[in-house]
Formats: sequence, structure tokens, C-alpha cells
Amino acid sequence: MLPKGFKVGGISSYLSNQNLKKDLAIFISDTLANTAGMFTRNIVKAAPVNVSINRLKNREKFFGIVANSGCANACTGSKGEHDAEYVCSFIEKEFNLMNGSMLCASTGVIGQYFNIVENDFQKKINLLKSNIGTSIKNENDAVSAIMTTDTFIKKGYKKVKNKNGEIKIWGCAKGAGMIYPKLQTPLHATMLSFVLTDAKISNKDLQIILKNSVDQSFNCISVDGDTSTNDTVLVLANGQSNTNQLTGNDLINFTKSFNELMIDLAKSIVKDGEGATKFIEIEIKNAGTKKEARFISSTLATSVLFKTSMFGADANWGRIIAAIGRSGVNFDLNKVDIYIDKYQILKNGTILSFSEKEIKKTLLKKEINIIIDLKSGTATYKYYTCDFSYDYIKINGYYRS
Amino acid sequence: MLPKGFKVGGISSYLSNQNLKKDLAIFISDTLANTAGMFTRNIVKAAPVNVSINRLKNREKFFGIVANSGCANACTGSKGEHDAEYVCSFIEKEFNLMNGSMLCASTGVIGQYFNIVENDFQKKINLLKSNIGTSIKNENDAVSAIMTTDTFIKKGYKKVKNKNGEIKIWGCAKGAGMIYPKLQTPLHATMLSFVLTDAKISNKDLQIILKNSVDQSFNCISVDGDTSTNDTVLVLANGQSNTNQLTGNDLINFTKSFNELMIDLAKSIVKDGEGATKFIEIEIKNAGTKKEARFISSTLATSVLFKTSMFGADANWGRIIAAIGRSGVNFDLNKVDIYIDKYQILKNGTILSFSEKEIKKTLLKKEINIIIDLKSGTATYKYYTCDFSYDYIKINGYYRS
Repeated sequence: MLPKGFKVGGISSYLSNQNLKKDLAIFISDTLANTAGMFTRNIVKAAPVNVSINRLKNREKFFGIVANSGCANACTGSKGEHDAEYVCSFIEKEFNLMNGSMLCASTGVIGQYFNIVENDFQKKINLLKSNIGTSIKNENDAVSAIMTTDTFIKKGYKKVKNKNGEIKIWGCAKGAGMIYPKLQTPLHATMLSFVLTDAKISNKDLQIILKNSVDQSFNCISVDGDTSTNDTVLVLANGQSNTNQLTGNDLINFTKSFNELMIDLAKSIVKDGEGATKFIEIEIKNAGTKKEARFISSTLATSVLFKTSMFGADANWGRIIAAIGRSGVNFDLNKVDIYIDKYQILKNGTILSFSEKEIKKTLLKKEINIIIDLKSGTATYKYYTCDFSYDYIKINGYYRS
Repeated sequence: MLPKGFKVGGISSYLSNQNLKKDLAIFISDTLANTAGMFTRNIVKAAPVNVSINRLKNREKFFGIVANSGCANACTGSKGEHDAEYVCSFIEKEFNLMNGSMLCASTGVIGQYFNIVENDFQKKINLLKSNIGTSIKNENDAVSAIMTTDTFIKKGYKKVKNKNGEIKIWGCAKGAGMIYPKLQTPLHATMLSFVLTDAKISNKDLQIILKNSVDQSFNCISVDGDTSTNDTVLVLANGQSNTNQLTGNDLINFTKSFNELMIDLAKSIVKDGEGATKFIEIEIKNAGTKKEARFISSTLATSVLFKTSMFGADANWGRIIAAIGRSGVNFDLNKVDIYIDKYQILKNGTILSFSEKEIKKTLLKKEINIIIDLKSGTATYKYYTCDFSYDYIKINGYYRS
């Protein structure tokens, strides 16, 4: 259910020289929309990231986003940026949009150029023009066109009611590997996420809401600890809802729904983590500072030894302790409590006797909750990760083959 | 070939409640030896690490090291420290050594207590007393007693000649997983390494040589990016060689051989990395600073995506770029050259055309050399890592099962 004034679509474009799946998506508003973006902090940024960052410096309002999968257009130098600009311009011209009003994003193999054969590309864009719309099929076409190793479509939808009427927020995401986003405003994020809303909201508020939201969603997930050159989150608000400019409680309610959608999308990336068999939520309680809680949780979330023991359903909690101990954060082990779901396994730094059989049963579940209570402050943090399986090796040992 | 005055041995002790393999080793000098040590920087330190650090604060000279495998004696609180002290004292008494003159080290499962049954332990130590000596069998007994998931014995030997005579340096190491040592003097490694020498060298020189050597050996290796609670490197110099106190060129020659031995031992840990099928040397050239070179190389060496592509012999060099880009070090991509063995694949940040077939052939080899030339300074750094295979998951998913 797209918000008012938005159309989306996806086709197979050959841009990545692959013809097996849909690989070019478009997300477009029929009026200019306030836009906020966050991008990878990797100092090696893909061409579409540089192009979108530059475009966001020059204007606040955009018509939409063109995104492709299969070819990341990263490490492609000035030719890569030229190609990204070319695709944006081509779309602008064909869809009668003003110059510079499209943003772009890419995901796929690094170090390959777009395969643009002009006549062929024209035909593909003609096909795209006849395949955009507001239907569930259009949504699914668009979202599947940005998928790479993803095994399912990640999209979500919220309605926010207020006294004037109703606002819709629609979002989608892709990502299954090279997932350890470190997104920055707007200079530094292969997960992609695009959010469309018909809310009337200022650019400034949109950017603040996006940043806060990313810090508790996409910036709290890891599949493999590798931060991509292409991570991009973009939100477009075209103001076409029949509500007033968002302020006060209305803004708070919108923010709440926006955050929920972003956290759901972020979690769905982890659930679809390459080869993942389990979803793991790590909750740090009573840390000295939020930053410390973040360091501890992200160190555990990216520990290969922890992730393989979760795959094996092995209550090797010593690996939890070893990981948090190397996080660089100072804490008093004698205060630390650790829980695996409802089972407390460590109390004040001391091992409790627990039934290996019971814990094994818990660890064989699809969703596992780890709580680490440091009892040294009041800061809390949640981080989402997945286990590390044979299939991860299979998928990534032979990604390009 | 042990240096003069040293005896070693290893037996099966049941300390870890496992009777399948030798699990208790002793390394002993017949006179007090100058001793230097480095230990894990993980803030969660195993009991034997705390005990050895404390003992090193109180004296400079020791008789030897008692080390066990199977039980890490980590996260075992004051009982764990008491147990470690008990084992040291027991050895001191049985071998007629002065109180507090033994150091200790452990490796194995975290969170388990030693299984000490007094009469049984007495019998085991009696067995150990009759099984120490200077033979190759004694060496192999001792080194195999500290092995966990290791698949081969890691030991080495150097002779250093000078005008007065000859010095011997003998060293051993264990480690295959939870390998990402960050060793500190002496406060802050589950690799274990013990080096014995009959050199006449001051404690101060020994500590300086050890620190410099570790910084270019054990601190430059990663198997899985997880730093252990137990990492320990100890060196004992008993001065029994027929040479003078080491100074000047003699000290330089000794240092050179010492470093070579340590680098060989460190490389052997990576070669035996859990599930490893390939040894990878990462060489950073012309970085701004040594610290930057270290950050870049260690980030790549711990990148799961890079390591899985090496397992798959996939020249997915984009993952090299993505990893070095997220290292937090600022560099100019437009200057970067990358080589895989003799094949240059990136020149001034631009992809070179290369034969996938040729590179595949190279990547199927057992040893791979990656060179990253940043052309922005003069600092160089070498880092050693291995690939990530199905067997890694197998070994670590079911470590305790």
C-alpha cells in the first residue's frame, strides 16, 4: 500500500550483464518530495553514493530513486560516476522530471562497470515506464529488483492517524551480506533501504528523524561485520497526505511509527542474513554509557566464535565473556549477569549451574535473546545479529562464480 | 634440542576431566632464569593469567612454567585463582623449587574449574616427574600437552653463534582458534608460546626483545578475530650458555634469531588455523604511519567476506577494497595499487584487466600474498591470516559437544 502520489516498479535491465532476475527499480513521486539520506561511512564509497551525496548537497527536494542490483558500481572511478549520472539523467528525461531530481543506489559485485548499450537501455526504460504503478505487484517488482543474495522480500507499511487524517509510511530494504552498516549524515552506509511517505514534514525534521531512527535500526545490525561501500538509506516525504505539517504530538506519533518500521526492516535483513538459521537479539543493560553498551554489543554481534556456537546451539557462554572482554570497554566482571533467554548462566561474574539440556532446547529455537547486565550504569542498547553457518561459507566462498 | 639446563615433559593429568590426550606440560630450568612475559589485553583475564602477572610483579627470576589444555580456568573467580596457585605450589613442592618460582598458563573451555582430586593429582605429578627430560620425545610430549584444536606440533629452534660460543633458543606455541592476540606488557593473549634460552641476558633486555618481537609476530596474526582470555607468551633465559652477557652486536644477533623464531611460531599458528586451507600474507606498503598500516592489515585479515572468498579461490578483490575502506584509516583510493601474488589487479584505484583464469590458479595455491600499496607514506606492515572454510564452522559450532 504505497503512500499517496508514489509509483514504483522493477524490471530486468541487463545493467549488470545478468539476465536472470529483475535488477532495476524505480521509486517515484509525482510531486517533488522532501528528502533525507544516510550513507556508508566506508571511505571507499561507490559511485552512486558519491552522486547521491552531491545531489543532496544541491537541493532538498527530489522526485525519486533509481536503484539497481548485480553491479555495485563501486571502485569504478570517474567512469562509474559518469555512468550513475547517465542513468539518473536518462530516467529524468524519460519520465519528464527536472534535471538532477533523481537519486541513485546500487548493490552487487564491486569493481564492475554498468553494461549500458544505448538502444537496449532505451528499450528497457520504455519497459520500466509501462511497468510502474501502485499495485502490490509493482511493489514486489521494485523490491525484488534490489535483492541480491536476499531470499525474501523485505517491505513494511504503517498508517499514522491524527486529527486531520492519515499518513502512510511505506519502506523496503535489501541486504543479506556485507552487513555491518555504519551510516552517517550525510557523508558516511550493501544494505539499501528506501522509505516513502505522504507526510507533510520539513527536511530538517525528516533528517533528524532518519538519523535517530537509523541509530536504533540499521546501525544496530550485523551479519558479517563487513561494512559495504554502497549502504544507502533514503526517505522521501511528498506531503500529499490530507494532514497538516507535522508538529508536536503528531510529529511524535509519526516518529514512533517511522522507528517501528525501520527496526522491522533492519531485523528482516538480519533474519535473511546469508546462511542464517537463527535471529539473535543482544541486549546490554545498565552499561556506563550508550557508547560503551554499543561497543560491547557490536563486538559480541560480530564475534565469529559466538556466532558459530549459536549455529551449533552450544551454550559456550565463555565465548560471550571473551568477546565482551575484548570490546575495549572497561567493566567489572564481578558485577556481570548473563541470561540466555530466561536462563541466567552468570551471576556477578560467577557461573551458575544450569541444565545444559534445557539451554540446548532454547538454543535450538529460531530466535534467541541474550541479555548482558553490567550493573555499572543506566545505559541500554539492543543489537541484532544472526548465526554463522555452513551456508554462509558456501554463499560467500563462491559469490561471483 | 633444548638449551642447556632445561627439561620439559607432558602427561595426561585429568585436570580438565578429559583423559583422551596429554594435557599437562612442564618447562623447567635447573637454575633460576630471567623471565619476561606478555599477556592478553582482554579485560576478562583467566585465573592463570592473573596469577602469572602477579608473580612477575614480585620477582624477576623463575624456575619454569606449568601449562595445561582442555580447561582454560577462565571466569572461575577466586576459586580459579586458588586452583592455579595450588597447581604451581604443588609442582614447586614436588620438584623442590622455591615458593612462587613457577608461572602458569591454561587453554581450553572457558568457565570450567580444574578437576583436582588430591591423591590422583599426586600420582599424576609423580608420573610427570619420571617423564621430564631433554629428549625429542620429552619436547613433543610437552608441546602436545598444550594443544587443543591444533593439528600439528609447533616448535622451533635456533642456534646463535658468537665469539665466545653458542646460544640456543627453543620455542613452542599452540593455537588454532580464538586467535587475534593483542598482547601487552605485562598487563594486558588462546595462543600460548613458551621460549627457553640459555642466553645470558638481563631481564630488561629480555622484556624489550620480547615486546618488539611479539609486535611483529603474535600481534600480527588472526584466525578468527577473537582475542582470548588466556593468551600468554613467556620467555625464560637461564644464562647457562658458555657466552658472555649479551651486549652490542651479540645482542643484535640474538634478537634477530629470536624474532625469526617468534615469526615462524606465529605463522605456524595461522597455518594450523581452525579449518584453514590457505595461509595468507598481507603486506601493506607505503602507509602514512605504522599504526595506519596495522589497522588496514588487521581489518582485512579479520574480514569474514575476504576470508571466505579466499577459501573459494575467488578473486573478489572488491572485498579487499571494502575492508580496507572501513578500517577507519584515511587514504586516497586514487593512489592505491593492489597485487595478488605477481598479478596487479588495481592501479591508482582503477581496475586492471586481468585473466580470471590465471588468478584462479594462484588463488588455488596454499600460500597467497596480498600487497596493498597506499603510496602515501613510508610505513610498512605484514599481517598473517588464513581462509574461512566449512571446517571452521564444524569445529566451532560443536566445540564443546
